[in-house]
This record gives sequence, structure tokens and C-alpha cells, in this order.
Amino acid sequence: MAIMEISIVPIGTEGTSLSNYVAGCFKELESSRDDIQYELTGMGTIVEGDLEIILALARRMHEIPFDNGAKRVLTTIKIDDRRDMNASIGQKVQSVRKKL
Amino acid sequence: MAIMEISIVPIGTEGTSLSNYVAGCFKELESSRDDIQYELTGMGTIVEGDLEIILALARRMHEIPFDNGAKRVLTTIKIDDRRDMNASIGQKVQSVRKKL
Amino acid sequence: MAIMEISIVPIGTEGTSLSNYVAGCFKELESSRDDIQYELTGMGTIVEGDLEIILALARRMHEIPFDNGAKRVLTTIKIDDRRDMNASIGQKVQSVRKKL
Amino acid sequence: MAIMEISIVPIGTEGTSLSNYVAGCFKELESSRDDIQYELTGMGTIVEGDLEIILALARRMHEIPFDNGAKRVLTTIKIDDRRDMNASIGQKVQSVRKKL
Repeated sequence: MAIMEISIVPIGTEGTSLSNYVAGCFKELESSRDDIQYELTGMGTIVEGDLEIILALARRMHEIPFDNGAKRVLTTIKIDDRRDMNASIGQKVQSVRKKL
Repeated sequence: MAIMEISIVPIGTEGTSLSNYVAGCFKELESSRDDIQYELTGMGTIVEGDLEIILALARRMHEIPFDNGAKRVLTTIKIDDRRDMNASIGQKVQSVRKKL
Repeated sequence: MAIMEISIVPIGTEGTSLSNYVAGCFKELESSRDDIQYELTGMGTIVEGDLEIILALARRMHEIPFDNGAKRVLTTIKIDDRRDMNASIGQKVQSVRKKL
Repeated sequence: MAIMEISIVPIGTEGTSLSNYVAGCFKELESSRDDIQYELTGMGTIVEGDLEIILALARRMHEIPFDNGAKRVLTTIKIDDRRDMNASIGQKVQSVRKKL
């Protein structure tokens, strides 16, 4: 299981608002039947699940802005892959909070 | 007002857990008397506030792992700076949610 | 054709040097028979090629540090995917240089 | 001395080409009298120098697209700060190449 943060930015859109595009990508996540957890943050989307599954999801999400008219898309994918223990998004946050 | 995401990663630490280091950086935020909003996510920390103030905070947070023994630190700072309207972290998330 | 920047960082390594790990990942690129272009920079590796091919490469490169003993790996993949023209790494740099 | 990679992306531009904006930011670097090294890559700009100096440069570069009409700018700054030795951009690349 790995944790991924993904941020998808279309370039050359008409206005400065990207929420329509972000919502389109997020719907792709919501319609997924995969065994994943996810959350929307102010700077991207965080997804937790099997590495192959979340990478395939990233690939599909990257395509959505093109389907919605974008001609250029910048996508940033950060993967935190820990194999000595099964770290979830919640456990990572909890682990820091305990030390505050 | 701008929104920043910051992720601070010490290299060459003894183990694979980074939560002690992350907690140290987060305390720097909590002890700040600046007019900022912030939240801890599974992949970093998101901060909202005046651009100069949050950049100065990022500079101080980057220093904390060195104070705690790290010899090499990789810090990633993403800034979303929108000047046609005053977008907060909450408004960004809300704006996407409305379209789902 | 798309351009990708990839940076692969193992966590909890013995020392602060990562060049052995980076060299391992880069060899994966060099041994590829895919139709790609790539270059090593001071902050990562830039790869140009068909999107599916370079994403598959990223997946393989991400695995290399685990093969070499790492227990946790942070990988950052940035994709610049432009579909209104065929932009190569060289053309992107050239396009900026012309305007200097 | 630290190494920084900076990528500056204006949102809501008229077309998909960003080279005019990137050139503007790069000129800010070229006109600097600071003791820095830098290079333009296909995915950003890499700068090497004193940490305070390169962070101040990043702050100035981030402002340039606004001077050129942008209303929203996404800037990503990655800092590699190594204090057990003086690593330059060239040395980092060389260190990997030796192991290939």
C-alpha cells in the first residue's frame, strides 16, 4: 500500500479558476470501484491504496482535463511508498500529532 | 494572501520514520504568532497567509531538522498565489465540492 | 509525446549521499530500448517520449531503490503533456532562449 | 551553499505557451549580481548558491509573471541543502555519472 498526492493543472485555460477541472478529476476518483481511500486538500488530492491501482488512477485523472478541452496539462504525482510497515494517511497524521 | 504547501524531508536519517522531524517543523508553525491558517495532511503541511510571512515561516521550518541533527534536508515549497480574488484553503476545497 | 521529470529519494539510508541509488535508477533508463530521450540534471532526470512508455519507465525506476535495500522511497513525477504541438525538451529550452 | 530548482507557472494565460513568462523569470536570474550558478532545463531552472540569496531570488522570480499580467501563479521551489559537504550542481551530476 502506498500514499500518493496528485495535482493536475491545465495550462492556457480561459480564466484563473481551476475548480471545474479539479472536480472532473476528483469525480474519476469517486467513480472508482478500487479499494482506495482519498481526500481533497487545498493543494491537491491524496490517495491511499495499492501502488499499481493508484498509479493507474493517476493516469486516468491526468486525462480528464483533456477530455474537458485542455490542450496542455501539468500533473505532479508524489508517491510515498513504505514497505517496512503499512502506513495509511490517517496513521501518518496521527503519528505526527502524538509528538506535538 | 497566498497558500503554500511545504514538505520537509531529512536525508540519511537512522530509520524510515520521519514523524519526529515533521512534528518539530510543525511546532514551529504552532508557535508562530503570525496571522496564518494551517493544516497537517498526510503528505505535507498547508499554510495560508501573507506571502512574505509564509515564506519566512518556510525558511524557519526548513532549519528545524538541522537543529535536530540532520545533515541534509530536501524541502519542497509549492505556492498558489492568486491576486484576482482572496482564495483561502477552505474556499478552494469548497469551490471544488460545489461542483461534485 | 510528453516530458517527465522524475526524482527518486530513498528514506532512512545510512548516509547522506544518494548517488548510488540515483545511478541505479538511471541505469534502468539507459538499458531501456524504448524510443525516449533523457538527461540527468542536478535535481532529477528528465525524460521525453510517449506518455504510456515514460510512465511505465517511472514505475520501474521507482522500484530500483527497493531492490537495492531501501525500505521507504519518495518519488516525485512531474508530467508536462502538451497536445497542441509536439514539444521536446530541446524545443522547450530553445523557445525560452530565443526570448532572452 | 544549497541547490534549488524553481518552476513558475502562470494560470489562466491566453495560450498554452509559457516561454515568454519563463524568459521573464530567467532574465531576473541573469541580471542578478549575486554569486550564483544556474541553468535552464526542460522542466525548470536550477540555481546554486547561498541559501538566503537563492530564496530571495525565488521570491523575486515569482513576482515577474504578475508584472507581466498574470493574475495567478503556481511556483514550486525544491531545495537540496546539504551541510556535511559543499555539493554543487556539477558535483552532484558527476557523482552519479562516476557510478554508471
